[in-house]
Amino acid sequence: MAQKPSIPKGTRDFSPAEVAKRNYIFSTIKTNFEKFGFQPIETPSFENSETLMGKYGEEGDRLIFKILNSGDFFDVFNKSLMEIIKTILFNLQNFIKANPDSNKNSEFVEAITSKAVQEAFLRNPVVEKIDYKNLKEELNLIISNHFLYKPDLLEELKNSNNDLLSLYSMTVFGIFISSAQSRHLSTNITEKALRYDLTVPFARYVVQHQNEIEFPFKRYQIQPVWRADRPQKGRFREFYQCDADVVGSNSLWQEVELVQLYDSVFSQLGLGGVTIKINNRKILSGIAEVIGASDKLIDFTVALDKLDKIGADGVKKEMLEKGISEAAIEKVQPLFNFTGTINEKIEKLAQLLANSEEGMKGVNELQFICDNVTTLGLQTAFLDLDVTLARGLNYYTGAIFEVAAPKGVAMGSIGGGGRYDDLTGIFGLKNMSGVGISFGLDRIALVMEEVGLFPEAVLATSKALFLNFGDKEALYSMKAIGKLRQKGIKVELYPDQSKIDKQFKHADRRGIPFAVIVGESEIEREEFGLKNLATGEQQKVDFATLVTLLQ
Amino acid sequence: MAQKPSIPKGTRDFSPAEVAKRNYIFSTIKTNFEKFGFQPIETPSFENSETLMGKYGEEGDRLIFKILNSGDFFDVFNKSLMEIIKTILFNLQNFIKANPDSNKNSEFVEAITSKAVQEAFLRNPVVEKIDYKNLKEELNLIISNHFLYKPDLLEELKNSNNDLLSLYSMTVFGIFISSAQSRHLSTNITEKALRYDLTVPFARYVVQHQNEIEFPFKRYQIQPVWRADRPQKGRFREFYQCDADVVGSNSLWQEVELVQLYDSVFSQLGLGGVTIKINNRKILSGIAEVIGASDKLIDFTVALDKLDKIGADGVKKEMLEKGISEAAIEKVQPLFNFTGTINEKIEKLAQLLANSEEGMKGVNELQFICDNVTTLGLQTAFLDLDVTLARGLNYYTGAIFEVAAPKGVAMGSIGGGGRYDDLTGIFGLKNMSGVGISFGLDRIALVMEEVGLFPEAVLATSKALFLNFGDKEALYSMKAIGKLRQKGIKVELYPDQSKIDKQFKHADRRGIPFAVIVGESEIEREEFGLKNLATGEQQKVDFATLVTLLQ
Repeated sequence: MAQKPSIPKGTRDFSPAEVAKRNYIFSTIKTNFEKFGFQPIETPSFENSETLMGKYGEEGDRLIFKILNSGDFFDVFNKSLMEIIKTILFNLQNFIKANPDSNKNSEFVEAITSKAVQEAFLRNPVVEKIDYKNLKEELNLIISNHFLYKPDLLEELKNSNNDLLSLYSMTVFGIFISSAQSRHLSTNITEKALRYDLTVPFARYVVQHQNEIEFPFKRYQIQPVWRADRPQKGRFREFYQCDADVVGSNSLWQEVELVQLYDSVFSQLGLGGVTIKINNRKILSGIAEVIGASDKLIDFTVALDKLDKIGADGVKKEMLEKGISEAAIEKVQPLFNFTGTINEKIEKLAQLLANSEEGMKGVNELQFICDNVTTLGLQTAFLDLDVTLARGLNYYTGAIFEVAAPKGVAMGSIGGGGRYDDLTGIFGLKNMSGVGISFGLDRIALVMEEVGLFPEAVLATSKALFLNFGDKEALYSMKAIGKLRQKGIKVELYPDQSKIDKQFKHADRRGIPFAVIVGESEIEREEFGLKNLATGEQQKVDFATLVTLLQ
Repeated sequence: MAQKPSIPKGTRDFSPAEVAKRNYIFSTIKTNFEKFGFQPIETPSFENSETLMGKYGEEGDRLIFKILNSGDFFDVFNKSLMEIIKTILFNLQNFIKANPDSNKNSEFVEAITSKAVQEAFLRNPVVEKIDYKNLKEELNLIISNHFLYKPDLLEELKNSNNDLLSLYSMTVFGIFISSAQSRHLSTNITEKALRYDLTVPFARYVVQHQNEIEFPFKRYQIQPVWRADRPQKGRFREFYQCDADVVGSNSLWQEVELVQLYDSVFSQLGLGGVTIKINNRKILSGIAEVIGASDKLIDFTVALDKLDKIGADGVKKEMLEKGISEAAIEKVQPLFNFTGTINEKIEKLAQLLANSEEGMKGVNELQFICDNVTTLGLQTAFLDLDVTLARGLNYYTGAIFEVAAPKGVAMGSIGGGGRYDDLTGIFGLKNMSGVGISFGLDRIALVMEEVGLFPEAVLATSKALFLNFGDKEALYSMKAIGKLRQKGIKVELYPDQSKIDKQFKHADRRGIPFAVIVGESEIEREEFGLKNLATGEQQKVDFATLVTLLQ
């Protein structure tokens, strides 16, 4: 293989400099997760397919990477399918034998095929092994078309022995496979799939280990996830998620702490001035009640979100186009001028939603969270109420969070989360409320790069390179290197006896600040030549001084 | 879905306690890698299939997890295959038309089928899109059998229109797919595969980024790999590898440093007394020369390795059984009594291999490494020469390493490595020597658990739990919690106003050493009740004292 090697689209190699920067962010997030009492878990990269499939909607199912079964992955499917096809043809044969004089017109063919398929599915236990949407309908269509297309075959079928029946089965099988929907086929040849997010595996973990877990359980998880998304700038097929969730407590103090956690992480990263936007699913439900159309809620929030861009008239126009009535828009007029402090905004909402029980619950939750966050204070972040925030509308039931990069940085949300009252219900454990937040590592890294927030020291290269003048000198150097390393000082020997120029260049290119020069005279005097590669300054020092200068 | 959720066999969930222990090992390894001048890189979890396939032998290929193409993964394969089958049948039709009067016996059928297949493969460009071993032979067989089985078909074929030709193609296609070797099929529906080890992706990385890399390149990589191995005790389908490699230098100082690196890591983990076994591929080649049978080398080392168990006579018997001659065994007699210091062992080898140029190269390399390691000294590990060490015989070209757990601990090797002169050759970059070592995380963790080496402090839980007596008290607590966290002290609030008993129990089960009690009187006096949960001792303290006691 001599072609230039490459990696799959949407994936990335990370160089030492990149790993160092990413680790700096990971470790800041981790430290803060732990400071707030969250504990790490890890789950496998792949889960059983049925754990993941059907949890992210139809679009999500398509984007899940499936792992091909090892060994004879196609066998069960083939055998089961062939079995059912043969049964259908066998039924068909019997029907024809039973009705030798019928007119073999299309109605007859369609009727007996349908009956043959029906009976085969009723009686055949192997069908259970085939997971294929509309399998019955497709086989029905293929077989009746087949015999309609070539009517003599029906007569032939009547007299077929078992072998010939098998042969016809092959044809039907061939037609089926060659036109089969790949995505329906895939469930039969894949039992495992790569993790799509960290929330569903976490829910699975909680249910599976419920007897070992002490609730409320505050867990964090920092692991890669995979999505077969169309790769584009800033969107990858493999990327890390950093999640902190609490499960098993309804307390709103969790929401207060999660806002503080966002503030703490972004402040420590030097990314001051992020806006933590908060909303509540119950408030959205209240608004839906007021506009009298819960199915229009997304349209409503999407339109309202454009207020800054297209103005009140534009928003109103869009809402009307989407079928929201003039009267409804009139009722929520206060949302068109939704400014002021958080408390003023909450006050406006309380008036607007006064008649909605659900809405008022949301207002009270919001009040509790905002009051306490305000009283306790934030380091550098701003908290803001944003009623257009509607992320995760299908699963969040309480608070909804989203973090926007500091003003002036063009970047989508760099974090998000919320509360879901029934996190583990999909796996059979009811009444487990969960609330959590997530950090978008890749976007945070892009923002930090743009604003120039990575500390110089992040890329921890060696402190000194010992040049190599020969084995005797190298051995002398290695003795010093061993002692320095035991003191935790990163130093290394240039391995080859290359030209000294080349060795200096190596230190330079690697960003190593000092070179240590050991020749015969240094060995004699038990000294070391230490050269500062930035200033060019050079001095002879004993070992103790070397330690001091490199520490 | 109400079934009890589970994870795929061979994979694991890691609880907070397990993650903490594993991270302790990871971070010790990482610190030492960096102290020795290695820098981290990361590569994608999945690579293009062609990057991995064919690099690990046939057995390895089978154990690689393949990722199903997303979208209509079956389409290209189906279309290409159908195209070639149709061409074959079309050719066949023409041959029959051209020979209307031939006797349609089996020889004729087989001859024209073979010719039809041959020509179709010669002319049809779509065949290139099908990656299937023995495709030509299989189609030949299927088609000739088909027409031999039902000779009338040949006559029918002669008069077939295009539609009927398609129908016959479907039958052939069906027969092919239903009997196809799944593993040959898989290359057509998978373009990506999960990483099987870290060495091949590293070689790919070096070649792909050769212009950005400053050589010699010392890289480390700690990432999971996946193998579809039969799961068993201590063998998993997802596990971490921790590799350090140097590429682009032939210097034997690297081998010296890698021995020191093993010593440094295991010493720091408290795992004193490991044995770092060393051998050299060139010495094995020398021995092969002496016994006059390089194909018997594995048999020879396997037998010799049993010396302790079955004695010299047993070993000799086994060697004779494997076809190694009496004379050859006589020549390598010194290896049957291969004891003493490393230097004595090297001396014996030098005599034994005196006439083998390759063997003597190995002896000299070994001498350099052992002399320097001995002079520089090891902290707690032992270096030993083991001529039966033959791991990676197919790719290692120089030093071979393996680390054995301390005596008395029943565990296979906990690390291994070696030098491969042509690391990147498979990707077209010649003459890049690499040498590296690997740490077996799972086994190291098992050994440390067995010997009880994990420090108590590894599981960093919160230092104190603030009990929750109500919102007013919680707010007072949260103010203190915020300040404590800013000082880096891990504390948390119990989120719910549950019974105090339950809250104490929570702290206990979580292993949190202190509870902080805040009631009305504490708020009034600006105090905190601090209870040591181990001793039961309780005191009232002001905030400054609280900080001191929890720090």
